[in-house]
Amino acid sequence: MAGQQGELVFAPLGGVGEIGMNLAIYGLGDARRRTWLIVDVGVAFAQEENLPGIDLVFPDISYLIEQKRNIAGIILTHAHEDHYGAMLDLWPKLQAPVYATPFTAALLDAKRRGEYGAPEIPVNVIELGSRFNIGPFDIELVSVAHSIPESNSLILRTPHGNVLHTGDWKLDPTPVLGPPTDEAKLRAFGAEGCHVLIGDSTNAVREGRSPSESDVAKTLTELIVQAPRRVAVTTFASNVARIKAVADAARLAEREIVVVGRAMERVIGVARETGYLKGVQPFHGMDIYGHLPPDKVVALCTGSQGEPRAALARMAADEHPEVALSKGDRVIFSSRPIPGNEKAIGRVINGLIEQGVEIITDRTHLVHVSGHPRQAELEDMIGWVKPRTVIPVHGESLHLSEHAKLARRLGSRTLKISNGDLVRLGPGDPEIIDEVPAGRIYKDGVLLIAAETRTVADRKRLSFSGIISVALAVDEKGQLVADPEIELIGIPDNTAEGAPMENVAYNAVVETFDPLPRQRRRDPDSVAEAIRRGVRAAVAQHWRKKPNVTVHILVV
Amino acid sequence: MAGQQGELVFAPLGGVGEIGMNLAIYGLGDARRRTWLIVDVGVAFAQEENLPGIDLVFPDISYLIEQKRNIAGIILTHAHEDHYGAMLDLWPKLQAPVYATPFTAALLDAKRRGEYGAPEIPVNVIELGSRFNIGPFDIELVSVAHSIPESNSLILRTPHGNVLHTGDWKLDPTPVLGPPTDEAKLRAFGAEGCHVLIGDSTNAVREGRSPSESDVAKTLTELIVQAPRRVAVTTFASNVARIKAVADAARLAEREIVVVGRAMERVIGVARETGYLKGVQPFHGMDIYGHLPPDKVVALCTGSQGEPRAALARMAADEHPEVALSKGDRVIFSSRPIPGNEKAIGRVINGLIEQGVEIITDRTHLVHVSGHPRQAELEDMIGWVKPRTVIPVHGESLHLSEHAKLARRLGSRTLKISNGDLVRLGPGDPEIIDEVPAGRIYKDGVLLIAAETRTVADRKRLSFSGIISVALAVDEKGQLVADPEIELIGIPDNTAEGAPMENVAYNAVVETFDPLPRQRRRDPDSVAEAIRRGVRAAVAQHWRKKPNVTVHILVV
Repeated sequence: MAGQQGELVFAPLGGVGEIGMNLAIYGLGDARRRTWLIVDVGVAFAQEENLPGIDLVFPDISYLIEQKRNIAGIILTHAHEDHYGAMLDLWPKLQAPVYATPFTAALLDAKRRGEYGAPEIPVNVIELGSRFNIGPFDIELVSVAHSIPESNSLILRTPHGNVLHTGDWKLDPTPVLGPPTDEAKLRAFGAEGCHVLIGDSTNAVREGRSPSESDVAKTLTELIVQAPRRVAVTTFASNVARIKAVADAARLAEREIVVVGRAMERVIGVARETGYLKGVQPFHGMDIYGHLPPDKVVALCTGSQGEPRAALARMAADEHPEVALSKGDRVIFSSRPIPGNEKAIGRVINGLIEQGVEIITDRTHLVHVSGHPRQAELEDMIGWVKPRTVIPVHGESLHLSEHAKLARRLGSRTLKISNGDLVRLGPGDPEIIDEVPAGRIYKDGVLLIAAETRTVADRKRLSFSGIISVALAVDEKGQLVADPEIELIGIPDNTAEGAPMENVAYNAVVETFDPLPRQRRRDPDSVAEAIRRGVRAAVAQHWRKKPNVTVHILVV
Repeated sequence: MAGQQGELVFAPLGGVGEIGMNLAIYGLGDARRRTWLIVDVGVAFAQEENLPGIDLVFPDISYLIEQKRNIAGIILTHAHEDHYGAMLDLWPKLQAPVYATPFTAALLDAKRRGEYGAPEIPVNVIELGSRFNIGPFDIELVSVAHSIPESNSLILRTPHGNVLHTGDWKLDPTPVLGPPTDEAKLRAFGAEGCHVLIGDSTNAVREGRSPSESDVAKTLTELIVQAPRRVAVTTFASNVARIKAVADAARLAEREIVVVGRAMERVIGVARETGYLKGVQPFHGMDIYGHLPPDKVVALCTGSQGEPRAALARMAADEHPEVALSKGDRVIFSSRPIPGNEKAIGRVINGLIEQGVEIITDRTHLVHVSGHPRQAELEDMIGWVKPRTVIPVHGESLHLSEHAKLARRLGSRTLKISNGDLVRLGPGDPEIIDEVPAGRIYKDGVLLIAAETRTVADRKRLSFSGIISVALAVDEKGQLVADPEIELIGIPDNTAEGAPMENVAYNAVVETFDPLPRQRRRDPDSVAEAIRRGVRAAVAQHWRKKPNVTVHILVV
């Protein structure tokens, strides 16, 4: 049997050496024909990178499109954007059967309904903790604690060895919502024999173990009960346990919950549908906010990352149409800054401070915990599962390297891999045997463009030094037949001496064109190139930057 | 006398409500005629903001240019860029006498020599701790500890009350270099009577007091002595005490110091000239690096903020021509990430990790301390000086507000001000009496442009959605006399269906032009506007983003 199925392979197409954009594939078969299982289809957010005009970054799935007929299915471990956020854009290109637990399936559908033109994706809803087959893959779900309901590790049992794909997880003996990480099942799997663990490295540089969601709930309760006036809490919208903690605290403080922001409304709707807010009091829409006394309200807001269009940023700029804060109110950031967002968050905080609002963050109060395992938690997991080999994924190089160090200390082998490495997991010890195409694609407007195309690089050049557009009409003899047209965009108006830069450019056009020999004037490409260089040089002399120049020669 | 001189006023033109760009003015006289003293002329760095193509941000000094004849002088408290970094660009517009202590004066001159075309600025070198006059201003320097040699607080004695302008300071009983903050002089000034303290708020949100530079030196020594192979230390180049600590540690470890990076070389040169590295062993240039055994070298590098062109980033990318690192080497970030630089620093760290290099940061080791006072230090200062009023400056809103809270708790009055507020400091309690123009100017290439001009905003638009440039030649009747020319820059190549976007744009030109009534065709502006709209709409239909479009109509 084993011989017939060839081997078990694995390749990450995203999420290794970077944060976000998780997409991994497992293959069964041999090099001539493999059947693929896709685990997660995540997105990365472009705002932290210098990608002007790009909102979303997806893994390049050209290899999977090529292999489309051999894809048995897609399984989503949980509903965080970095694990499922590329589905609406990429699934139409794959059209493979999708498997997800109830909350993940419902949130994907709610997201689809909120996005104009997004495809309806049929999802096979699978039960928490269940075992089932996707094509040749024998999969068992292991419930794990995380910062969203229904995060799952996957056990893959194959003739070439058993694999634990941890997905995103942490240990939390007292999560506010959902079961703790299923230690019993993991220990049993360890006893059965784990050939490879492929695991979350996000917090591998942090010592000890994370506090519990219940500890956060306690702090939030104190802060809400003791607040003199209005309270606004901002958190990641998908953190339903956190939302429940805030709701419980509000109830204790005899305050009403007002929900501000669409992403928050969507998650709350799905959480109610799927039973995760059973027994939690009803929440209110924004319309009621202005009518509640300051000591009777808790606003649950989107915008913890300083997103300029989200609720909290608009409140901080005093531009929200329905929700305002004022002196003595309290805003709790029940979140952490995602690297790259510090400045945007700082702007929001400063706007709130200007309004006399008190700010509480995780720097001074236990109002947030991460959803990923720290070192002691990683040690527990490896201790339970006793994997022969650990392959660190989900993290930047620093995190992967710390995770590997820790695993080796505990007696596991480790394998260092990058996006696109094709790894034979079994039979035998894992090794890299090949590469598959892996890269990034950008969502630009509604179009998907390869990261390698010049589109974004060109836009960066434009943003650095603007553009000068020149048009000339010449006759067949190469004589000018109209006054040259010129337009400068994104170029300083004047030289240091106060001369209009437009004149500098115009004079360069004329002074370049006039002395051109007649022969050359008849070659429009050559004229255009001469003028482009002439204008660039003339402007650069005053600016010490070289503008982009485009020249049209119309031969009439 | 007091009556004759009118009043003492103060206005910050930068540094309040923001980090960086410190420039403050003090005025003596009455509203008809004031004599001004400028304190610091700092720069802000644009890389953290979304200002494409802009490197530096300066305070708008148009008000001072207008008042040029009434400026008695410029005094620089210390040589950090955010306090003196705009001098080379702005001084030529003011040409007022400049006062600075020896190290600051020497570093300004060294910087000038490194910048092509920078002006030579005559500086009156003043002694540490001295008292002197600048025009009608009676000024006394108070030496304070900070993260650069020769940081000074200023005592201003005026008939309308005495002022302490703290500049940047901290308390450190054991600085590695230079004297501790002059407590005795500050206490004596307190006894004499301080009307207003205008003070550094940078660390006002942080409890307790900072560790000493000597504690950092101890950690660095351990880390360098125990390192198995090469060590590279990156720090802010101007932190001469830190450089000395690294040098002392290297000597103990019998390692040579190699200096990598121009900014570092410049500061070390100036520090030697001014006697701050007396007794410290000679350092080496990069040429010797490759010849030293791994356990005999410490590289002192620029690039602690992840600056892509600095030494460390090039080493991390394995692109430095002379200095390479490898497995088992140790890199110490003796610095902290300036908000906004986290991603860039992350990239450098990941590059180093990929090379097998061990990373030490201030998250796990005491390898950096801030140069600004935490709460207990602010309390000491206010306790010594006993100001009647505290005006917090140098910080974002959050910091200013915490500083004010602390001062009120200690019994001082406080006044909240913003950039451009003109404050009457005395006679009487300080109050805001007017506004002066304050804003920002950008350095774009070698040109200074007002932040309000459309240049940078236009470049942002270009970076978001590219540009389509169109040229048409028409005769006087409005007939096309040549094939339209079109160029797309920064626009996706194809529609979702695979059609070239250039064709979409070209067709829109033709389809917009053809049906235009003859009358309208004769009006080039109207034709251009119709085509602009037509092309925008056609491309937006496929892209769901509206490109910038520029249209040239040449009438032949």
